[in-house]
Amino acid sequence: MKYSNQDKNHHSWMVVENQFHANHLKKYEAIMTLGNGYMGIRSSHEEHYLDEMRNTFISGTFNRFSEEEVTELPNMPDLTQIKLILDDEVFSLTTGRVIDYRRELHLWNGEVYRVIKWQSPLGKTYKIEFKRFVSHNNLHLLGQQVKVTPLSEEVAINIVSGIDGQVTNSAVQHFIEGNKRFYYGKIQEMQQKTTESDIEIYAHTVHRFVLNEEIMNLKPFMTMDRRKIAGEYACSIPQGQTLTIEKLSMYHTSRDCDLKGDLHDWALSEIEAVGQWGYDLWFEKSAKAMKTFWDEKDILIEGKEGATFDQLAIRFAQFHLKGMTPAHDNRMNIGAKGLSGEGYKGHTFWDTEIFILPYFIYSEPQVARQLLIYRYHSLNSARQKARDNGYKGAMYPWESAWIEDGEVTPVWGAADIVTGERTKIWSGFIEQHITADVAYAVWQYYQVTGDHPFMEDFGFEILAETANFWCSRLEWNSNLNRYEINDVVGPDEYKEHVNNNAFTNYMAHWNIELVIHLYENEPAFRELLSDKMTIEADYHFWQKRLDLIYRPQPNADQIIPQDDTYLQKKNIDLGPYKNKGKVGLLFKDYNLEQVNQMQVTKQADVMILMYLLEHLFTPELKQVNFDYYEPRTLHDSSLSLSTHCVLACDLKKYNLGYSLFEKAARIDLGDNMSSSDQGLHAASIGGMWQCIVNGFGGVRNINGMLRIEPSLPEQWQRLKFEILWQGNPIIIEIEKETLDFSQKVTLSNKGKNQVIVMTKDHPIPLESNGQVVL
Amino acid sequence: MKYSNQDKNHHSWMVVENQFHANHLKKYEAIMTLGNGYMGIRSSHEEHYLDEMRNTFISGTFNRFSEEEVTELPNMPDLTQIKLILDDEVFSLTTGRVIDYRRELHLWNGEVYRVIKWQSPLGKTYKIEFKRFVSHNNLHLLGQQVKVTPLSEEVAINIVSGIDGQVTNSAVQHFIEGNKRFYYGKIQEMQQKTTESDIEIYAHTVHRFVLNEEIMNLKPFMTMDRRKIAGEYACSIPQGQTLTIEKLSMYHTSRDCDLKGDLHDWALSEIEAVGQWGYDLWFEKSAKAMKTFWDEKDILIEGKEGATFDQLAIRFAQFHLKGMTPAHDNRMNIGAKGLSGEGYKGHTFWDTEIFILPYFIYSEPQVARQLLIYRYHSLNSARQKARDNGYKGAMYPWESAWIEDGEVTPVWGAADIVTGERTKIWSGFIEQHITADVAYAVWQYYQVTGDHPFMEDFGFEILAETANFWCSRLEWNSNLNRYEINDVVGPDEYKEHVNNNAFTNYMAHWNIELVIHLYENEPAFRELLSDKMTIEADYHFWQKRLDLIYRPQPNADQIIPQDDTYLQKKNIDLGPYKNKGKVGLLFKDYNLEQVNQMQVTKQADVMILMYLLEHLFTPELKQVNFDYYEPRTLHDSSLSLSTHCVLACDLKKYNLGYSLFEKAARIDLGDNMSSSDQGLHAASIGGMWQCIVNGFGGVRNINGMLRIEPSLPEQWQRLKFEILWQGNPIIIEIEKETLDFSQKVTLSNKGKNQVIVMTKDHPIPLESNGQVVL
Repeated sequence: MKYSNQDKNHHSWMVVENQFHANHLKKYEAIMTLGNGYMGIRSSHEEHYLDEMRNTFISGTFNRFSEEEVTELPNMPDLTQIKLILDDEVFSLTTGRVIDYRRELHLWNGEVYRVIKWQSPLGKTYKIEFKRFVSHNNLHLLGQQVKVTPLSEEVAINIVSGIDGQVTNSAVQHFIEGNKRFYYGKIQEMQQKTTESDIEIYAHTVHRFVLNEEIMNLKPFMTMDRRKIAGEYACSIPQGQTLTIEKLSMYHTSRDCDLKGDLHDWALSEIEAVGQWGYDLWFEKSAKAMKTFWDEKDILIEGKEGATFDQLAIRFAQFHLKGMTPAHDNRMNIGAKGLSGEGYKGHTFWDTEIFILPYFIYSEPQVARQLLIYRYHSLNSARQKARDNGYKGAMYPWESAWIEDGEVTPVWGAADIVTGERTKIWSGFIEQHITADVAYAVWQYYQVTGDHPFMEDFGFEILAETANFWCSRLEWNSNLNRYEINDVVGPDEYKEHVNNNAFTNYMAHWNIELVIHLYENEPAFRELLSDKMTIEADYHFWQKRLDLIYRPQPNADQIIPQDDTYLQKKNIDLGPYKNKGKVGLLFKDYNLEQVNQMQVTKQADVMILMYLLEHLFTPELKQVNFDYYEPRTLHDSSLSLSTHCVLACDLKKYNLGYSLFEKAARIDLGDNMSSSDQGLHAASIGGMWQCIVNGFGGVRNINGMLRIEPSLPEQWQRLKFEILWQGNPIIIEIEKETLDFSQKVTLSNKGKNQVIVMTKDHPIPLESNGQVVL
Repeated sequence: MKYSNQDKNHHSWMVVENQFHANHLKKYEAIMTLGNGYMGIRSSHEEHYLDEMRNTFISGTFNRFSEEEVTELPNMPDLTQIKLILDDEVFSLTTGRVIDYRRELHLWNGEVYRVIKWQSPLGKTYKIEFKRFVSHNNLHLLGQQVKVTPLSEEVAINIVSGIDGQVTNSAVQHFIEGNKRFYYGKIQEMQQKTTESDIEIYAHTVHRFVLNEEIMNLKPFMTMDRRKIAGEYACSIPQGQTLTIEKLSMYHTSRDCDLKGDLHDWALSEIEAVGQWGYDLWFEKSAKAMKTFWDEKDILIEGKEGATFDQLAIRFAQFHLKGMTPAHDNRMNIGAKGLSGEGYKGHTFWDTEIFILPYFIYSEPQVARQLLIYRYHSLNSARQKARDNGYKGAMYPWESAWIEDGEVTPVWGAADIVTGERTKIWSGFIEQHITADVAYAVWQYYQVTGDHPFMEDFGFEILAETANFWCSRLEWNSNLNRYEINDVVGPDEYKEHVNNNAFTNYMAHWNIELVIHLYENEPAFRELLSDKMTIEADYHFWQKRLDLIYRPQPNADQIIPQDDTYLQKKNIDLGPYKNKGKVGLLFKDYNLEQVNQMQVTKQADVMILMYLLEHLFTPELKQVNFDYYEPRTLHDSSLSLSTHCVLACDLKKYNLGYSLFEKAARIDLGDNMSSSDQGLHAASIGGMWQCIVNGFGGVRNINGMLRIEPSLPEQWQRLKFEILWQGNPIIIEIEKETLDFSQKVTLSNKGKNQVIVMTKDHPIPLESNGQVVL
């Protein structure tokens, strides 16, 4: 049976902009970002507009402009501009009249297509089509095609196109200008070098012009300005005929893991080879790779009205997760905005481990592995951070960039509305739970995949060193005879300098408990680490502390206190600040010091504890705490809604879960026209998958056992997805019966091994190539 | 008698833009630049547009971004932006409908005034007026005023205004981001530091809002982004009433010569003081200083139709000369684009000495003195350049920035259209005539002013060291038994690596001849320099070489060869490239190597020799050479036309002179909408004064004698101007008789001493407070 939403023309396969808004450029640039993990390019138009934010990033090319700033992903020389001058009128949608406009991001093949009918200020009409793709077949390649058809009369066209290095990160210039060249009357070249990290980059582009299926040999007039090279090409297009302009461009850097020989020779030979062929050939190769991806990974949702959007949302999420993830290079990780904006400077947070990694662990474990090896490569800088702060083991940086950089969180933030001074950002100093989050992800990966070699090569060492950090981090309270963790920021960043944040303390306890278990039960752990560490001594150190670690317990009302003082703080009316479609509204009226004194939470805190360590809490306790904390939570972080959605599903509140999912799915895709200015919300996009698979799909790893307890929301008729469990593909299909709306759940094991599935507390064996209907 | 053009409403007192063109922004930004020698601000609009080039420069604050680039004047944090949001519609002239538009630069008081009637996209109409000035009373101060009147209904207005450090020089960032603060609920502050030259800068701004003559206490919502601080102010304006927004802003830098105590304390106390009062008070103070200037310096032109433009042109020239000249600080000089654009990076060329200094020497000698002291301060770096190149004495840099920087000419230029490679810029290596040009200017200054203390303190040493350079630079040709100067670029930069460029050789000869004269006739020269230099040995060195220096002589056709090979080169049809309203057209067809092989000249070369050393050449020889070289000259440099105009006047071709003047006056003020993109043409602006005073006014210093031989072009009825000769103000008025068009020339000496004026080869004594009618 074929789903209608598998048809590529279906709305659920494309993101559409059907009107040009000069004020909404940044929104569509971000949500239509094209990427392949190596590079990400915001979909700024070929022609310039005032409010555009024209960004191209290449993973891992971090540079630090000055000692006063933190390192960031530099904005690469722009290759996407193509200026069209039609009978001396510059093509721009802010002039003349836009008769028709439509832009589509085709999720199934990774192409952005734009078609315009435009009347120029002088009244001449043109049909202009634009296509572009970032290749999924060749990481370095970007292709563009423009078709210009003059409708009213013959036109003399001038095309100005080249490489524009006059780009910055919000006015910060990361490159030393290098050489510019024009080779063989054909290839434009720009070379630059990052100012501090000394990464050499090459941008190349070649053009091709076709009129009536004839390749035209247009000789450009070349100009070189500061950090700019461009060719001006001119010809005439008879009325009704179509000129096709093709621009194929490439980036290569000295940081590329596929670098072959001399960078310049390599880059030049690659663009020469690409230049032998046109757009269509290279696009086909990329589209084929995308097809293979979707054939394996597509998740299907069918149902009522809203379901089409939900289907689109999950494809949007998977498309961008693919585009933002540097799966090719395990010295790199995912930025909090992917490769789609300057926000968070390309830095990696716990967003990867807690919100994005579940998708890869269950769908593309080889990618999850790469992302975790990044943390292994970062172990030494994490050890350095621990030493610098007087601790042992590995203290992971709150924000992470290049593997050797260590902590890269900026120190200064926005203005304090009361004092007029910049506020200090404490996360880099005391938001320490990241270290347990990394350990948690390693263990999840291992339990779901069974990848023991990974644990031997990388995982065990990360777990032991994170546990060592926590042990050294504990503070002995001799009055209460317990170990505490004081002066931290928990997931709720509206509370700084708190003691015994429940999430942090439980996660630290879990981390230590795990390594004790491994030491006692996993010979490889003990043996492998005994060469590298004083593992026996460490074990005694863990043992002595574990049971004395304070884990906040439910109070008389069954509420687990978020920290030592939260429950004593005052409550305020959050009406003006919650669910207003904008985040951070509270700071129009209060400064952080004042917010610190209120029972108001930025994002899931006790809630995410109850999600990640779910086996420690009863459903009743979860319900009571959900009811207490959710109304006090502003969801001012995009990390908040998906956690609440999954928890709501766990609590069998599917309609509430669905409404939370609806909001989460609209953080980028919804109608807030500024929420994506600085880039997509990578964690939220990962969270969308969690809502569907961990929430409604009910998939969970419970101590190494696969649990599946699906339940569809009212709006859905059918849900079908695949996960990998210990290497076995398991297809899960949930369908409502037409008559009584009861749900039929079909589990199919396409793998080689039997898999035991827990459902409603019963183990069900699912044989190789077997199927079970629940 | 009062001239009609003294009326401040006269067209000749203002530069007007009477229609908004989104494509012509750069033109008006440049020609309406406001400056006071300390700072220069292009007149970008308060609201942003795509094609704007928003620049603020502060004299002397040079910074070098990287070793691969040359130092340049950094673009300062922008203070001029004011975003107006009217009932949620952002004010922009590219949206809605512009019902009325007019912008005026008021030359008499230095204010830019803009008045707009605008219908918003939603159909609401507003009258909006903008005023701004850069203070001529307080070098650090910039004032802005905006008046918003809603015509159709009450409006809720939001005003976003602050300090924007997200600016660059064509994407190059020269500042390390510093602190941002908001003081006393009133003062916005941004601090930055240049990356290499370590200059600290502060930008401050204060706002004031007046409705119905009541000062409103609007509390802003403050935002701080990266390199940005802004306040958002909100209120309502009833229909027909006017909200006045005032923004007073200041810059202070650690390079300021008036720096008092701690930079931050000083800057903050200054803005506090300024903030006590409104726009009108500070503007009045500045306007008063401008009035004093014009009362003394205004040049009057009356005549036929075109004369009003000519009157405007000279006022435009004087206005900008005042705005671009750092008269307050003799460690600084004038950039080739003044302070009005990124072009030539704020660097100083021979433009100052040969094209701009005459104006100051005759009009404001104290300013000329400052500009020459800059060259004295640069002597050590000029000596270093000589040493580095194996010469003696002082070899002035072709391009000059901070006094210690030495040569700052970039090494790489635009693309070679044939090879596709960047072309090398040879000027910094071999365009050596600059050293004689500086000497020439020193001597002109001295002869016209009689400022002997200047010569003792600065001038003599410059002259001796430049002569020493030339002596060491000479190359002995044993075949021809003469000294030559080979492998240079002369004023004609379309000829590289030429031997015996006539201009260079004659000027070198002149320079050496002069110091021999001084040594023999000026005891102070000998005595003062004997302490500092081996002056006696130098003298013998000069003597031995002088008569053996080769100065190219007229050939059989009376043509002085521009260099050894010019006259043997081929002639091409310059029709497609000359007088086409655009410069550099030749390079669409030829590369520099090819142009090198043609008899085509970029700008006055033999002609400027015949102008500067006019006593060496007969009128007949000048005529023959003018007729030979002018047709081969493309005037592709803005330094060319004024020289040709003055020469035409000398040759009594006043109509030809006038047509050349007309072109020169339109380099910035004419209808070429892109010629001023990179800034005003400072040398051309100085040249406009030369056309009038040295050309039609016939004023010249001939070996220390004042010559005046005026003759008006057909289009002029009357010309009146003042010069200073040896400290005596001389008013020169030329008027045509109504009946026979004969010219009446009246010379009035307002000074304390008798002045001998040469006219038609006769000396005429002009007594103190006396008047002579010629």
